[in-house]
Amino acid sequence: MFGLRTVFHILGWVTCMIGIMLVLPAFTDLAYDNADWRIFALSSCLPLFFGTIMVIATYSPPPLRLNFRQAYLVIILGWLLVAALGAIPFLGLGIRFVDALFESMSGLTTTGSTILTGLDSLPPGMLLWRATLQWIGGIGIIAISVLIMPFLRVGGMQLFQVESSDPFQDRIGSMFKTLRLLVDVYLVLTLACALTYFFLGMSGFDAVTHAMTTLSTGGFSTHDASFAYFKNPWLHWAAGFFMICGAIPFLLYVKLSMGHVRDLVRDAQVRGFLLFLAFTSLAMALWLMAQLDIGFFKALTLTFFNVVSVVTTTGFASEDYTVWGTGAVGVFLFLMFVGGCAGSTSGAIKIYRFQIMLIFLRRHIRQLFSPNRILSMRYNGRELSHDVPLSVLVFLSAFVVTVSLVTIVLSLLGLDIVTAYSASITAITNVGPGLGKIIGPSGNFQSLPDAAKAVLVFAMLAGRLEILGLLVVLEPDFWRG
Amino acid sequence: MFGLRTVFHILGWVTCMIGIMLVLPAFTDLAYDNADWRIFALSSCLPLFFGTIMVIATYSPPPLRLNFRQAYLVIILGWLLVAALGAIPFLGLGIRFVDALFESMSGLTTTGSTILTGLDSLPPGMLLWRATLQWIGGIGIIAISVLIMPFLRVGGMQLFQVESSDPFQDRIGSMFKTLRLLVDVYLVLTLACALTYFFLGMSGFDAVTHAMTTLSTGGFSTHDASFAYFKNPWLHWAAGFFMICGAIPFLLYVKLSMGHVRDLVRDAQVRGFLLFLAFTSLAMALWLMAQLDIGFFKALTLTFFNVVSVVTTTGFASEDYTVWGTGAVGVFLFLMFVGGCAGSTSGAIKIYRFQIMLIFLRRHIRQLFSPNRILSMRYNGRELSHDVPLSVLVFLSAFVVTVSLVTIVLSLLGLDIVTAYSASITAITNVGPGLGKIIGPSGNFQSLPDAAKAVLVFAMLAGRLEILGLLVVLEPDFWRG
Repeated sequence: MFGLRTVFHILGWVTCMIGIMLVLPAFTDLAYDNADWRIFALSSCLPLFFGTIMVIATYSPPPLRLNFRQAYLVIILGWLLVAALGAIPFLGLGIRFVDALFESMSGLTTTGSTILTGLDSLPPGMLLWRATLQWIGGIGIIAISVLIMPFLRVGGMQLFQVESSDPFQDRIGSMFKTLRLLVDVYLVLTLACALTYFFLGMSGFDAVTHAMTTLSTGGFSTHDASFAYFKNPWLHWAAGFFMICGAIPFLLYVKLSMGHVRDLVRDAQVRGFLLFLAFTSLAMALWLMAQLDIGFFKALTLTFFNVVSVVTTTGFASEDYTVWGTGAVGVFLFLMFVGGCAGSTSGAIKIYRFQIMLIFLRRHIRQLFSPNRILSMRYNGRELSHDVPLSVLVFLSAFVVTVSLVTIVLSLLGLDIVTAYSASITAITNVGPGLGKIIGPSGNFQSLPDAAKAVLVFAMLAGRLEILGLLVVLEPDFWRG
Repeated sequence: MFGLRTVFHILGWVTCMIGIMLVLPAFTDLAYDNADWRIFALSSCLPLFFGTIMVIATYSPPPLRLNFRQAYLVIILGWLLVAALGAIPFLGLGIRFVDALFESMSGLTTTGSTILTGLDSLPPGMLLWRATLQWIGGIGIIAISVLIMPFLRVGGMQLFQVESSDPFQDRIGSMFKTLRLLVDVYLVLTLACALTYFFLGMSGFDAVTHAMTTLSTGGFSTHDASFAYFKNPWLHWAAGFFMICGAIPFLLYVKLSMGHVRDLVRDAQVRGFLLFLAFTSLAMALWLMAQLDIGFFKALTLTFFNVVSVVTTTGFASEDYTVWGTGAVGVFLFLMFVGGCAGSTSGAIKIYRFQIMLIFLRRHIRQLFSPNRILSMRYNGRELSHDVPLSVLVFLSAFVVTVSLVTIVLSLLGLDIVTAYSASITAITNVGPGLGKIIGPSGNFQSLPDAAKAVLVFAMLAGRLEILGLLVVLEPDFWRG
């Protein structure tokens, strides 16, 4: 009834790809002479085998066509499938099922919350696999948010339609071309980041894994201390720079590579994003100087890194900012909501939604006292059609309601209010660390009850799919065809 | 330029009215042989004198006309003026300025947060004045939300327009008639509540003051222990009943008194409100039985009273519910946002906004996968015009943003995150108590820094004026005319 054949055909390809990616940690462990390579090799064969069968069994002659329902199913089932496949190696290494799924989903959604401790002594294959999950998740969300979400009009993303026509008919060819360019940009940026890290003093392995989790704004580290492990302040500045790179619309890089510099430097979202980061880091640095009695450069290094890390939804920590004082906790709680730009790897609400909300709010307030005045709205140099602010506002409502419901469920499961609320936010915004002693920047999600971890798995997925992208399945009409 | 003459004429009448109301505590203290009666008598003369001058100096022949800007100015300045006048007796009694203004604004906005301790030993005049402030604030917000807000279209209130024509031209006559009926209903309900309280064992003074703060969903008590002072469980049920009465649209009582029973019992908002209260109280009672090992009736008495108290934004406490466990804290945090019905004395987001948000969210989600389907929206038996959900969503955004900003400011002023966040919510929703040890149900706002109290004074006002009703003054266009 749903054309599930096409859906499963695409999922088959995705399964094969995961199988191929699992070869990387297998070879790494083999190179480091670690016996775990067998687990990764086996975990790789499984998806390769079943993926190939799926692809062949569901083959139908091109062109490949997707309707709206199929597109949602591909995205949702795809994310669930890859999270499940990604958990297999963790299971093989003796991690419990809920924990394995949590770690895999946290990786794939580029959240970066972890249930693992003792990262520094883990086998390299496992560390690489965690980084790889985030890296896959990063390019996955770029692809979806550039190529599919705008046409599904999720949360105002119609603003970013590349072409105005329907992509599900016969534009698959041009979509693949764009996808290829996006992957190229992602590869080049990751490579540049890894080289920078390496030259600034990281080991080769750390440089590669951290580059993968920086560009994907994921935040998994190979050290329990996260970025605090690295003492060179320039490494922190470099990481800040590349986290920002990961949170910029990737389509603008593609345009940049075609010579359209103007599109990047004059983009309203990018400008707003950079201005917000600059203002917040600077203001917090001045505040921090007074609090901790430290110099300007040290304060700015701390605030720039941690503000960028939270706002881009990466979640690296260079220090436990919750000990800076009550003001820092209050500010970081709400910084988690902000997010980077649309069409990037970052999660949360995202800058353009705040901009559009403020434009619309201001217009609405004017009309409260001048009801007969006709006021137009412009964003990024173009007239704003009415359905964009509406979609943005619906998204914001769905976002706030979801955060609230998840918080209530977590508190009923026994989490204190700070842990419950910040866990809910950090999962849905895909940031990573929460607040409080348990799941704060120097904490860990291991000690949460299993039911809470399961709830957070779905919260991370909901956040990654812009809430509404997952909520569609709760509407009975969706299944009626 | 603004027609400030008319604005000040109305404010003159308001000032006189406050002068008259201040006679009540003067006589009370005189009757109880308390020397404070002089303070109230003096506090009464001041507004009577200046109010009369204002009324005479700004007199112009009828009809009285208001445009949109003037209406906003009357509401905002009126609320500020009465709060300032209401603070005078507190100043006279030796309370510091910020504290006096906080207590007065908390009373007038029917919030119910207090900076006073040792209520049980305070002079009766002062206790009556606190109750009177809430009672005035209650009828004030009913009048504004029934007669003015719908025409100003603040936060989707256009849904509740009594007549479809413009009220600011020559409908003042019919508005006064409606106002008179609303006051009658308010008086009758307050009297019924006072008599019920008296027959269930309260002293005459307690019955009157608590009736005034129950119907206004204000929550000031004459005892530090709030409603826990009264041991008779039926008093708690009676209070729950009358708090609900205060949170029902008062226009429906007016219609009821004209024989239109159907309007009340079939109203979508009232039904949703009562269902929500019944479900939440019952579910929490079952949960509480397991937590505290108590019987069903005792559990339901506790949950019904405290859920109703928070949802109606009254803020009485019959027990410190934050000790019931993490689940209770999580649930009550979000219950603060709910609120009662529009056109009542209760604050916060209000039931109809949730209903409209859900109707619209569901419609939006359906259109995500069926973009070409035409879906109409119905609410309360009528087609929903498009601007209502839009206004509701804008209101929700402004609400969440305001709560966030106030929280950040309070945390920068040194409040821990639970205190800062719950103080921000409880002020903006006009509930009263917050969460945590400092401002929780058994706490007090006295120990907060002055700057925090000042911020909360504006937060309470913003919440009472539906946020947008205050935000208009921040728009430069408002002052350009």
